[in-house]
Formats: sequence, C-alpha cells, structure tokens
Amino acid sequence: MTYCVGLLLHAGIVLLSDTRTNAGLDNIATYRKMFVYETPGERVIAILTAGSLSVTQTTIARLREAMEDPEATEATSILKAPTILKVAEMVGNTLATVRHDIDEKLSATDQGASATMIVAGQRQGGAMRMFLIYPQGNFIEATEDTPFLQIGEHKYGKPILDRVVRPDTSLADAQKAVLLSMDSTLRSNLSVGMPLDLLVIEKDACRVSLRRRIEPGDPQFKAMSEAWSKALRDGFTRIVL
Amino acid sequence: MTYCVGLLLHAGIVLLSDTRTNAGLDNIATYRKMFVYETPGERVIAILTAGSLSVTQTTIARLREAMEDPEATEATSILKAPTILKVAEMVGNTLATVRHDIDEKLSATDQGASATMIVAGQRQGGAMRMFLIYPQGNFIEATEDTPFLQIGEHKYGKPILDRVVRPDTSLADAQKAVLLSMDSTLRSNLSVGMPLDLLVIEKDACRVSLRRRIEPGDPQFKAMSEAWSKALRDGFTRIVL
Repeated sequence: MTYCVGLLLHAGIVLLSDTRTNAGLDNIATYRKMFVYETPGERVIAILTAGSLSVTQTTIARLREAMEDPEATEATSILKAPTILKVAEMVGNTLATVRHDIDEKLSATDQGASATMIVAGQRQGGAMRMFLIYPQGNFIEATEDTPFLQIGEHKYGKPILDRVVRPDTSLADAQKAVLLSMDSTLRSNLSVGMPLDLLVIEKDACRVSLRRRIEPGDPQFKAMSEAWSKALRDGFTRIVL
Repeated sequence: MTYCVGLLLHAGIVLLSDTRTNAGLDNIATYRKMFVYETPGERVIAILTAGSLSVTQTTIARLREAMEDPEATEATSILKAPTILKVAEMVGNTLATVRHDIDEKLSATDQGASATMIVAGQRQGGAMRMFLIYPQGNFIEATEDTPFLQIGEHKYGKPILDRVVRPDTSLADAQKAVLLSMDSTLRSNLSVGMPLDLLVIEKDACRVSLRRRIEPGDPQFKAMSEAWSKALRDGFTRIVL
C-alpha cells in the first residue's frame, strides 16, 4: 500500500509520499514514490505514484527515457511539453499503456495490476496545476473547492485535511497538515511506512523550494506527532458530553 | 454503507450505530441497525448490523422468530442460550445460512450479498462479551488489547479510537469517543447518516443502562461536534513544525 497527498494552494504546491511497498505482509521494501523533474526557473514537475510497483516503475522509466532521448520533442518529453495539462496527458497515456500491457500478462494467472498517480507542477508563465491520473489514463484536477488530492490509503488521513486545508492555507501550515495526515495513516495502516518524502514548490518559482526526506525517528516529525497526540487527548478531555 | 462501533470496557459496553442504508447514491433510506434483546437483570444482548439489508433483516427476523417460539429452547433462542459465546454462535450460524441462501439467489445475476454483525452482552453470572461476526458465521472477540470492534465504514473513525480508548476508559469518555468517531465518519462518507442509535450497558447490570436516538440537529451532538472541530483546529494552530 501507499499514501501520497498533494495540496494545491494559492502560495504553492505541497506534496508528501511514504516509501513502503509490499508483496504480502511478509515482504516489504522501501521504494521512492516521488519523482521530481525540473528545469529550474522554467518548469518543475512532480509525480507521486501508488499501486503495483511494476506498473509505476515501468511508467516512470518510459517517461525518463523519453526525456533523455536527444531527439525528444514537445510531444514526447514532459520536460518540453507546452503545458502542465499536456504533461498530465502524457503521463496518463504512458500509465494506461503500461498498465494495459502488464495487466494482460498477469491475466493468464487471474491477477491484475493497477496504479494511480498525482502529477503537479508549474511552467513559467503558466498556472500551478495538480492532477490525479487514473489507471486508465484519464484524470481529474485539484480546484479551489477541492484543493487536495490523495492516492493509495486515503481514508485515515482525510479527516484532518477536510478540517484544516483551504486554498489560502500557508505553506507552513500545509506542511503540518500533510505530515499529520500521514501520521494518522502510519498509525493505522502497517503497509504505509517511513521514510517520507516531502516537497514544496512555491508559486511562480518554477523550481523545488524544499525537498526533504524524513527518516524514521526524525526528531522534528516525532515531536510534531507527539504534540498532535497530546492536543487530541487534551481536546478530547475538555469536551463535555 | 454503515458505521457501527462497540467498546468493551471494564465499566461496561458502549455501542453506536448510524441508520442510513442505500441502494445507489440516489436511493437512501433510514433503517435501524441496532437490535436489543433483554430479560432485565438476567441478560442483555445487543446486535449491530452492517451489509446487505436483505441479509441483515432476514437474519434478525429469524432470530426473533426463534425467540418468540413458545417451544424455544437453549439451542434455538438467544434469550435462553447458556452463554453470550453461545449467542454469538447462534447469530453466526443464522447469518451464514441466510447469507448463503441470498447469495445463491443473486449469483444468477452476477451479484452478491454479505453482512457482518457485532454481538455484545452479558448474562447474569457471566462476563461481558463482545464479538464481531463475519459473513461466513465465524467470529472474533474484543479483548483487553483490542477493546473495540467496528463494522462497515471503519477507517475514518478509527484514529480517534486508537488514541483514546483503553479498557479502563470511563463510560462517559467512551460515549464521547464513539460519537466523535462517528462524527469523523459522517463528515467523510455520505452513505453513513443520522440519526444515530447509542446504547450503554453498565457492567453486571444485565440490562440497558442508557438507550438514546440522536436525531439530525441534536443540540448536544452538534455542540460536541463543533467543540471537537475547534479543539482540532486550535491544536493544529499551536503545533510548531
């Protein structure tokens, strides 16, 4: 399982992913699920992945191969695509093709493979955009009304986002919100695990503003997690039925 | 969908259920999902249901028919069964039979039907017990380590239970905990809805201690929900990243 979340705010984009993958409960491993591509000042694109590792890795590999191709064009490389919408379409098409191929291979043994992705970024002169890409390649976009998108194990971490995230939330509060949302998920689902990858892209910077890997036992994350537990317990105690 | 939760504490049993059923998002209705049977002072049994309404209603109807049969015996009526464990077995067997029958009828149209239940209660001289009954009739029991059981849409409401419920939680705090757990679920899943049914069974009373239907707009529930929102937002604000 996986938990990835992205916020699209007036001040910028904040993304968080875990790194645990598992093939059964007795076979877990750590894989990066956040991929960042930038031409600093011109464009920045982040992709978060959830689902079957063979699908997500192959999709990312194909996107990267296209970017590194010396004959890459606007139509083949997400680093040359004219808009972030076009990037979402390219990621969606690649994901759909890979998923279809792998699904067909697996169908012989009655298995299946699927994946979803979040694509977020900005190109100089364009707006910040964030998309959730479905396994079939179609997608939806974050808006003012719904400024966050989640993939993977989304339920445990949704209540806190529902309560505190608004389009005008600051980038500092947004980082707290996604980390607390992840904290609730980590507590309740064993197949979501540390370390975490945090990314902040300030509006109109068109480059990564902050990128941080949060390792197990990270003192800042631990302190925040404990402060939140205490705030919840204290709040609970004060409420009168 | 449904959300039902039960706590088994040193001080007693606390149960809460919603009442919304739906056949698609455009066809919702209100049905009781909490059923209480008691011989006050001798035994009290509560059953919470989640899943296909045709399965749960038929199961409850058969259990009731068996109770009302003038020739009911220890082996047929849950009001005469020698222990709450035996009650769980009877409920499990009835559920498994009903589910199997209905599932077979539906399989012709490639559909299926399933249901899970929570059975809780105490018999004079026995211990308080609480069980989660699976669609196949097998069951698990709440223990000191895991003093709560949930059926239906359980994820949104689990983080608060994980944080505050211990076997020595008071009955007043336990009511707060299940109501706040339900509050988070109501906010995030449209197919879980008011009114709510709350039940408290004090230890060794072997009767219902409190039974309350909480209607939409209930001032006490509303005040608690707002106080909790405020506590979460205030707690969030105070945390330093």
